[in-house]
Amino acid sequence: MRVYIAGSGAMGCRFGHSLSKTDHEVILLDNWEDHIQAIRENGLKVTGDFDETVKLPIMKPTEAVEVADLIILLTKADQLPKMLQDIKGIIGEQTKVLSLLNGLGHATTMRRYVPDESIMVGVTIWLAGLKGPGHAHLEGPGSIFLQNMSGDGQAVAHIVDMFNQAGLNATYDENVIESIWRKACVNGVMNPTCTIMDCTIGELFGTEGGLNLVQGIFKEFIAVARAEVGNIDEEGIWKYIMETSKKASHHYPSMHQDLIQHGRKTEIDYLNGAVVFKGKRVGISTPYCQMMTDMVHAKEAMLGLR
Amino acid sequence: MRVYIAGSGAMGCRFGHSLSKTDHEVILLDNWEDHIQAIRENGLKVTGDFDETVKLPIMKPTEAVEVADLIILLTKADQLPKMLQDIKGIIGEQTKVLSLLNGLGHATTMRRYVPDESIMVGVTIWLAGLKGPGHAHLEGPGSIFLQNMSGDGQAVAHIVDMFNQAGLNATYDENVIESIWRKACVNGVMNPTCTIMDCTIGELFGTEGGLNLVQGIFKEFIAVARAEVGNIDEEGIWKYIMETSKKASHHYPSMHQDLIQHGRKTEIDYLNGAVVFKGKRVGISTPYCQMMTDMVHAKEAMLGLR
Repeated sequence: MRVYIAGSGAMGCRFGHSLSKTDHEVILLDNWEDHIQAIRENGLKVTGDFDETVKLPIMKPTEAVEVADLIILLTKADQLPKMLQDIKGIIGEQTKVLSLLNGLGHATTMRRYVPDESIMVGVTIWLAGLKGPGHAHLEGPGSIFLQNMSGDGQAVAHIVDMFNQAGLNATYDENVIESIWRKACVNGVMNPTCTIMDCTIGELFGTEGGLNLVQGIFKEFIAVARAEVGNIDEEGIWKYIMETSKKASHHYPSMHQDLIQHGRKTEIDYLNGAVVFKGKRVGISTPYCQMMTDMVHAKEAMLGLR
Repeated sequence: MRVYIAGSGAMGCRFGHSLSKTDHEVILLDNWEDHIQAIRENGLKVTGDFDETVKLPIMKPTEAVEVADLIILLTKADQLPKMLQDIKGIIGEQTKVLSLLNGLGHATTMRRYVPDESIMVGVTIWLAGLKGPGHAHLEGPGSIFLQNMSGDGQAVAHIVDMFNQAGLNATYDENVIESIWRKACVNGVMNPTCTIMDCTIGELFGTEGGLNLVQGIFKEFIAVARAEVGNIDEEGIWKYIMETSKKASHHYPSMHQDLIQHGRKTEIDYLNGAVVFKGKRVGISTPYCQMMTDMVHAKEAMLGLR
């Protein structure tokens, strides 16, 4: 297969590195000049659980011309529409387009550019970091859950096989939307709260007020998720949140790192903001998510990011 | 009259100083040892718009024995129940007890210790600061609005007169509850928001997200106020908030000073927390106020204050 990785930041590099071990053709797409130049000149350097350099083709999205068999979307959420616009030339009739973006609402964006029968969605819990242009740092285990949105799992079994050949630990999941909601829910209760309160996950969960916030946000996510996907394992997701909060007790969530530590715009619109948007469509009131979204937007504006 | 000032912090000292200019007997009550000692040894020092020292009796609340004609309550909100407990011996049949505390819900607390026909409530916009034990710094103009809760204004005209003799600019207000709500509303939209967002009033009001927060909280205050006092001038209060936000644009509100700058517990329970409490009684949902209260409580807990 010809596989494009559309968005070759930290996670895109992890996927590119792993897939380079298979006999498929893998092409990275990105717009970061220094990153492109470094990978073209020296290859993609990978440290952490690995210590090697792999040669991989990389180009700007608009430069890709050969029709894809598979496109793996791994952009930042707010870069997705432009990416889809830029790569529409390589989406053919047989092309599958798989979103592994964090957050909610990406299938809706995809439908504006990609035929329904080509859309796949998934969720990954692999971690990845970038040390600099052309240098990915990869540690720890992970997995992928994915689903073909129209058509069955048999039709995309070769894609699941490819990920497993690459060691990416993929599973076909008939109900991947629930997994996406589960991950969004964990992020939605921890990310904006710790960002606005400027605290670790353990500090948030260690106070009664913090737990009340978490519960208020959680209930809104569950209500809107239930309206969207029907049955949802509320108890299981809550248990998962509590376990994660214990494991990651000393950590600041990624949104805190983005906004408070690095002054970058957040993905709040694809977490709590998406719940507000989806809630409105189905008549569910989401004041906690609205308020968290407003607070993060306000903080972004104060930092000159919007 | 024999007038006790129950709670002789900054504002209590302002009132004590002004009332010492009349021919009424004024006695300060407070529990701060250094403050009591300083005033006993050197008198109350007043700077700012004044530069003088006045002799005033001061004692602990439990030491007061002579029945009062008037008690002016000026404690911090969470010290009110203990103060009322401590001074019940000086509340006689003819004693009037006037609350000038910030925030909401104090009349309810008073009713547990004071007969209904003795209760007066009011609101003041005088400012005052303490430079140290026995030293108040008083600047700027101000006023008092007050009301007799059972019985008419005629019955307490002598109290209004006394305040005006002292230069404290008092007005009898048949609808003082609305004035209390107006002040609480201004504080309720600015105080917890700027505290949690760690920003000035101007920064908050200068962002769309911040304004959304302010409006969300404002609507809940108005809905609950309307349920409690009937007609309320929503438009007028909103205009007042917007004017105040422009005048105080470069300031951090008092709650920010308390919690973030000085690590002191806040009065959130008597602002947004009181709106949640009152809202529950009348069946009005107040998620914005609930969330702000939880966030401030969480921050207090993280700072070891609760």
